Amino acid sequence: MMKTVRVELGPRTYEIMIGPRLIESAGEIMRPCLVGRRVAVITDRPTGGLYLERLEASLAAAGIESVSLTLAQGEGTKSWESVRLATDWLLSERIEREDTVVALGGGVIGDTAGFVAAITLRGIRYIQIPTTLLAQVDSSVGGKTGINSRHGKNLVGAFHQPVLVLADTSLLASLARRDLLAGYSEVVKYGLLGSADFFNWLELNGRHVVSGSETHLVEGVATSCELKAELVSRDEAEFGDRALLNLGHTFGHALEAATGYSDRLLHGEAVSIGCGLAFDLSVRLDLCPPEDRDRVRRHFLEMGMKASISDVPGDLPDTDTLIKLMGRDKKVRQGRNRLVLVRGIGRAFVESRVELAEIRSILEEACESGSG
Amino acid sequence: MMKTVRVELGPRTYEIMIGPRLIESAGEIMRPCLVGRRVAVITDRPTGGLYLERLEASLAAAGIESVSLTLAQGEGTKSWESVRLATDWLLSERIEREDTVVALGGGVIGDTAGFVAAITLRGIRYIQIPTTLLAQVDSSVGGKTGINSRHGKNLVGAFHQPVLVLADTSLLASLARRDLLAGYSEVVKYGLLGSADFFNWLELNGRHVVSGSETHLVEGVATSCELKAELVSRDEAEFGDRALLNLGHTFGHALEAATGYSDRLLHGEAVSIGCGLAFDLSVRLDLCPPEDRDRVRRHFLEMGMKASISDVPGDLPDTDTLIKLMGRDKKVRQGRNRLVLVRGIGRAFVESRVELAEIRSILEEACESGSG
Repeated sequence: MMKTVRVELGPRTYEIMIGPRLIESAGEIMRPCLVGRRVAVITDRPTGGLYLERLEASLAAAGIESVSLTLAQGEGTKSWESVRLATDWLLSERIEREDTVVALGGGVIGDTAGFVAAITLRGIRYIQIPTTLLAQVDSSVGGKTGINSRHGKNLVGAFHQPVLVLADTSLLASLARRDLLAGYSEVVKYGLLGSADFFNWLELNGRHVVSGSETHLVEGVATSCELKAELVSRDEAEFGDRALLNLGHTFGHALEAATGYSDRLLHGEAVSIGCGLAFDLSVRLDLCPPEDRDRVRRHFLEMGMKASISDVPGDLPDTDTLIKLMGRDKKVRQGRNRLVLVRGIGRAFVESRVELAEIRSILEEACESGSG
Repeated sequence: MMKTVRVELGPRTYEIMIGPRLIESAGEIMRPCLVGRRVAVITDRPTGGLYLERLEASLAAAGIESVSLTLAQGEGTKSWESVRLATDWLLSERIEREDTVVALGGGVIGDTAGFVAAITLRGIRYIQIPTTLLAQVDSSVGGKTGINSRHGKNLVGAFHQPVLVLADTSLLASLARRDLLAGYSEVVKYGLLGSADFFNWLELNGRHVVSGSETHLVEGVATSCELKAELVSRDEAEFGDRALLNLGHTFGHALEAATGYSDRLLHGEAVSIGCGLAFDLSVRLDLCPPEDRDRVRRHFLEMGMKASISDVPGDLPDTDTLIKLMGRDKKVRQGRNRLVLVRGIGRAFVESRVELAEIRSILEEACESGSG
């Protein structure tokens, strides 16, 4: 039932293996990708508690020496402090340039451990074992690593490609439904930005994906990774097409910032709301048929996902503040509001001349419909 | 009188411009290399005091908007604290991905600001204006950036190539003779490791280089950069030939560590002593004719450079401790003692099977001759 997605990046090409129970044979699978004889596993508290022992057993069975570090859980781990702590730990373990860091966890661990691997000894190899749906379909492709700064999320980091990704779909069984649905937002996003066929498939099979059917999970994760890999291969450093991956994210980041990046609104939830707004704006600008927007919103509702600003619990700041929060996003280029818009399902493009007035109208309508 | 050295690194290819009074026209020279409209200058206190105003005037004259940050002087600046401070400053200045960081200073500023540029917004462009001889011939080629960790020097960092280097040889006039001579050690190193012709030239012209003759400085800096660029082009990430640049450095690092990386022994001074030891060891192993070692030592003495362990002021730890300090160097690979040795002047190679006993003998002889 296993699938492999190859991320073509010249000398940095690597493979993502997707399937159930991969962690049991992680040692055997990763051995051909190792150069040095040692592996340093970085994980976080709950994930480590669930899977670290199994991973270590599998490494030991394959004759791979390993050490491990468990960081605290949560977005706060994407900090200078964690990076310094983990880097110092690697150096105190006398890690060498040929050794490998293994990131075992969700996006927070992937981003943090990946960045630590990027800057320790000016770059050592790393392998990702993403344990959430979001991490399997998003951070496992593209090599973006990093931490948050007091000026915003992901503002400090590096492009550092893993040498291998093991996406074990069995690990997703332990996820809370809310987290699974939030990850599923990014899955839908791939269909919306680049593949109407995949969106059709999700309309039919989405419920099996989030109910944990292994076959559907493998299919959904693999197709998501393929779609992302194609964009990343064309544009590793994000100066062009890769920006399409930000569909729903500029609106989404503003909502996340407005809710303090808290449990009030998960990243994936902000993304589905953001995708909805991107379709709203595209319809308003006569770029996208309204039927497509309606299909998207219907799918979100059927799946029980957050679909509009009114789904955000609690109060939100006014429209001007939201716009300011959008502007603080690092995708601002030369002071202009670049946004990913759509000509329909599967047909996203980057528009850099979006009038602020149009964005304001969309947000005002959305906020009004929420308070009404 | 200007020379240009091209560092060939595929899409990361860049040029080093070497000549007098380049800082006066820095704005005009760098303008074609800019994408965004802003430049953020990072410098340190004494360097900034000497040159920042001139640089800013030249940027303003070329219509380039700039902001600047002055860090503290000294090796302590290569720290997590400085990197965090400088990164936060760039973000608070709302630097964007197309803007450019300019590092104005010696190796400490080049390494620190280069690393800051490497990790801010996952990598922004940077330009180096090295203000010491050491920085002009060493850190201006190869893209090594980084900071020190409590486990050792340069253990945290990134490979991040500049888009342009301006080596203004007139700036070297303000250097203390000791700093100039320490930088000159690295110049000699290039001859020793890869070009007997260049060493011959230095034997004849070295005194003009360190007395500040512009023609000789331009020639010496340009040839050093060319020799380093050739090795770096062949091996950007240092898995092979680039290691030759470490001639004299494994011994040198041990001596620097033993003297607490203090003013007791400058990096360049440790390098000349280290080169002497590498020649001693190579002669002992019957790899190198003794006449070549004698020529090298004679040149060091004629130039007034440090040439042997006995030139280190104050007490040194015993041989075993020095060996341990050598072993802590990050060039240790798979537990083996790789060393750069020579078959003669201009003919360095990497030897990974050096017996510890041989290294011990060389150090013991050197230490004895010092105490005698």
